[in-house]
Amino acid sequence: MSHNAEIIAVGSELLMGSVANTNAQDLSAALAAVGVNVYWHSVVGDNPARLREVLDIARKRADIIITTGGLGPTYDDLTKQTICEAFGKPLVLHEDILETIRVFFERNAHIKMPENNIRQAELPEGCTVFDNPVGTAPGCAFEADGIHVLMLPGPPFEMRTMLQRHVLPYLRTLSGEVILSHDIMTFGLGESPMEELLRDRMAQMANPSLATYAKPSEVRLRATAKAESAEAAEALLAPLVEEMVAFLGDVVYGVDVPGLEDVCFDLLKQRGWTIATAESCTGGRIAERLTALPGVSSVYRGGVVSYWTSVKADVLGVPQDILDAHGAVSKETARAMAEGARRITGADVAVSVTGVAGPDPDERGNPVGVVYIGLATPDGTFCRPLELGKRRRDRIQDLSTNHAFDVVRRYLTGLPINFKINQRP
Amino acid sequence: MSHNAEIIAVGSELLMGSVANTNAQDLSAALAAVGVNVYWHSVVGDNPARLREVLDIARKRADIIITTGGLGPTYDDLTKQTICEAFGKPLVLHEDILETIRVFFERNAHIKMPENNIRQAELPEGCTVFDNPVGTAPGCAFEADGIHVLMLPGPPFEMRTMLQRHVLPYLRTLSGEVILSHDIMTFGLGESPMEELLRDRMAQMANPSLATYAKPSEVRLRATAKAESAEAAEALLAPLVEEMVAFLGDVVYGVDVPGLEDVCFDLLKQRGWTIATAESCTGGRIAERLTALPGVSSVYRGGVVSYWTSVKADVLGVPQDILDAHGAVSKETARAMAEGARRITGADVAVSVTGVAGPDPDERGNPVGVVYIGLATPDGTFCRPLELGKRRRDRIQDLSTNHAFDVVRRYLTGLPINFKINQRP
Repeated sequence: MSHNAEIIAVGSELLMGSVANTNAQDLSAALAAVGVNVYWHSVVGDNPARLREVLDIARKRADIIITTGGLGPTYDDLTKQTICEAFGKPLVLHEDILETIRVFFERNAHIKMPENNIRQAELPEGCTVFDNPVGTAPGCAFEADGIHVLMLPGPPFEMRTMLQRHVLPYLRTLSGEVILSHDIMTFGLGESPMEELLRDRMAQMANPSLATYAKPSEVRLRATAKAESAEAAEALLAPLVEEMVAFLGDVVYGVDVPGLEDVCFDLLKQRGWTIATAESCTGGRIAERLTALPGVSSVYRGGVVSYWTSVKADVLGVPQDILDAHGAVSKETARAMAEGARRITGADVAVSVTGVAGPDPDERGNPVGVVYIGLATPDGTFCRPLELGKRRRDRIQDLSTNHAFDVVRRYLTGLPINFKINQRP
Repeated sequence: MSHNAEIIAVGSELLMGSVANTNAQDLSAALAAVGVNVYWHSVVGDNPARLREVLDIARKRADIIITTGGLGPTYDDLTKQTICEAFGKPLVLHEDILETIRVFFERNAHIKMPENNIRQAELPEGCTVFDNPVGTAPGCAFEADGIHVLMLPGPPFEMRTMLQRHVLPYLRTLSGEVILSHDIMTFGLGESPMEELLRDRMAQMANPSLATYAKPSEVRLRATAKAESAEAAEALLAPLVEEMVAFLGDVVYGVDVPGLEDVCFDLLKQRGWTIATAESCTGGRIAERLTALPGVSSVYRGGVVSYWTSVKADVLGVPQDILDAHGAVSKETARAMAEGARRITGADVAVSVTGVAGPDPDERGNPVGVVYIGLATPDGTFCRPLELGKRRRDRIQDLSTNHAFDVVRRYLTGLPINFKINQRP
């Protein structure tokens, strides 16, 4: 049986624009994977009357209602009370949950549980409790009038933890259909050129299907199939993924991998090699993405953020005559930065970035978007010059970071460093 | 007159979880600033029947309806058609807009306008046209049955451009009321302790009002007032903000500032000082947050990501006997890292971080969450030791980054570097 879900986020901070509703996004992506259609997202403030109206609309059109937020200990956290009134369920105190919350406070905050938090141990009578290992508010689920109501905490990390641990297992028992996807990750081809390449092929398909999703500077091509079992869905997907990987060639950097940095990490591990970084306009973004990966210290030695030209000279050892002759933003400096980072850290390879992130041109008149990626290796030093055009500062920084990882990936897989990059990937 | 708005995002990609609804966030923040209450966000797919139902609900509860998305040239872009049917408005072709779209294609894509795009020049009869300088889909607004309907494009950059250029001026003419907020930014006091401190004071208030918003490791205390004019709202806010800043003391790092790094940037600029960084477990996050700020090169020289112990020794010059005696994660190494970064870059101050981000303890048995912040200055070297407890890797990295900025802020404002966290004021 196919289910139609509505996701209701409760929280005035969403209506004030303080945060984006990432919970609805994470839930939607996860629900699609277990065959639950999400047809509506709603957001309402910490206001019981308006929440009640939103619930009354949802119960008429959806048979799964998932709320996020409003489970906290404070007076404006009203989700449970309002839902219990709407569905005629009494709230009852769970002594065992109260004890868990008490222990959580003592262990993590080293303080006694505030009195307020007793409210978090009150849950609808007869519900399934979703325990919260990373916060104090438990979630829960119950069925009433043929509708499954799930309440989840608002802090995104708590919500995501509960989603994986409790919500997906709960929903899998409801759904008889499986939807599986594989993501073919590409870098170097814009979304429009890719859609043009694939338009005819995509139009022929129904199940499995293909769709493109553009992240800043990357395109994810998602192949999706529905079937009665995971095996049957996989059998529909495998030949399509194979076909697309062959068709798109070396712009594909992986299938079902989270990002370019993960691919670089794997390639370095396979060789037993280490890497170093030398960053100017990306200001630590390459280092940051590498060090987000647990265990990366096996391949990442470290690097230099050489924001000032003097740091390029004094710490990385870029020769002063190169800086004088070509400037800080140049092919020659990019190469010397990579060589310097490789030398001072002892890494097998080093990648560098120097460029103009804006908002203004540099003092030599290089316009915003001029960026050079350097790569020092045992086989010599390489450079990828880029003209990214006038874009926002953070877009140039992120795009340059991706190009740096792409240069590393191409070198480690034996591909040429440079290729005819689509001007605006 | 006070207006109540609903923001309706149209797009199946939102219901698939491919992107977060950042448009609703950006619109909400902007609408709050011009005194329009946003009480609901809705998201619906590219399905005319469900969009029509969502519109019929919205027109009963809101007097401003703003849609994003569904204005593209393809067959599933149905927002205009559906809204015009709902409000009984005919769609008419605007020749001048058609010409603008043709020119946009030739200039930006260097191709002839595809036939499809003619649909983008069809707009509701008698509407106010919002031109789109950064894309092809124009937006528009009309009034019908006492309801203001605004349609905006879905791509976030196009939406934001149109918001500033057209939507805010349009809405300012409608609203007779102004809502103003000030954000009192704090670091070092959790959300629950702060709420407990302020509970009685908050309960007495209606206008102006106070609310807390917890970002990871920070609490924003927002004071909000409604009045007929900005001056009158400001007169309500000023004494409250002053009272709260005095009451909370030095956990307040600023009012209406975006983050700790902005405060550090300003403090350094005021002194004409420069800073450098030496990062181990934060892996470039301090550098990244500094270099996100345009113009930061006037104060930020650069730094070292000394992920390996050998980089701490070879690049930062941390003495080998300190590393041998105390290990890479120690007070002594944090101090020596900061001193090394200050020495090799020539900066006036340097901040360092070394610690265990996890998921595993380090080889000396330091548990996850043990972190040391070092600060080298002309007045000597300081250290803040932290025990952040077992948390997620990225939380420890972000929290340590904030502590590093807080140490810099406290030093530059003449406050003690260390304080008993969570037990202040």
